[in-house]
Amino acid sequence: MITLDFTKNREGIIPAIAQEYESGDVLMLAYVNEEAFRKTLETGKAHYWSRSRHRLWLKGESSGNVQEIKEILVDCDEDTVIYKVAQRGNAACHLGYDSCFFRKVEGESLKIVGKKIFDPEDVYK
Amino acid sequence: MITLDFTKNREGIIPAIAQEYESGDVLMLAYVNEEAFRKTLETGKAHYWSRSRHRLWLKGESSGNVQEIKEILVDCDEDTVIYKVAQRGNAACHLGYDSCFFRKVEGESLKIVGKKIFDPEDVYK
Repeated sequence: MITLDFTKNREGIIPAIAQEYESGDVLMLAYVNEEAFRKTLETGKAHYWSRSRHRLWLKGESSGNVQEIKEILVDCDEDTVIYKVAQRGNAACHLGYDSCFFRKVEGESLKIVGKKIFDPEDVYK
Repeated sequence: MITLDFTKNREGIIPAIAQEYESGDVLMLAYVNEEAFRKTLETGKAHYWSRSRHRLWLKGESSGNVQEIKEILVDCDEDTVIYKVAQRGNAACHLGYDSCFFRKVEGESLKIVGKKIFDPEDVYK
């Protein structure tokens, strides 16, 4: 039985980092509660807790871009996990980019460095 | 001026993922408030907000294992950042491992997969 520490946050959620298992690219960060983590272990597909919709969220349920779990890593404090995943559709971000981290700090502004894979208007109808 | 969204959390903090810039290994996750983020930009060394000590924290201030910033990425919602870093001392974890994510889920238990770099008792005296 794997025990994580869901107590540090009033909502009982901890961060889950999704990392592409071959490239090592960090795709996104979302949150999991105990249920989302269990569902992920059971199904082999990344589940999160949606803070905005207040419900369990199967990543890719709208876009089809699910994340197949290859490995799960747990940190020293047991309050953060890494989902190493194969990203279906090659895009993790709802804005159509490969990764949610598609911009880098350059001086006093942000420069787009990510790859645009799809147009959100075609996917979320 | 780079604006991040520190409002989603009552404490005004957001997660910062430290990732080794060459290997792509995720080293740790900690939190930043506006001050820690500014200090990081100004100094080129990773600063965080310590939730347990309630103060600004220069990573490596005790161990010497500072993180030199190579690049900073910002996510779509502007509420998570990645610090791409060169990790001095080759160890990010206070338990002496290369990464805080030194264990992986294997069935119903956690298996150590990380590399032990130092003995914490020698470093934190």
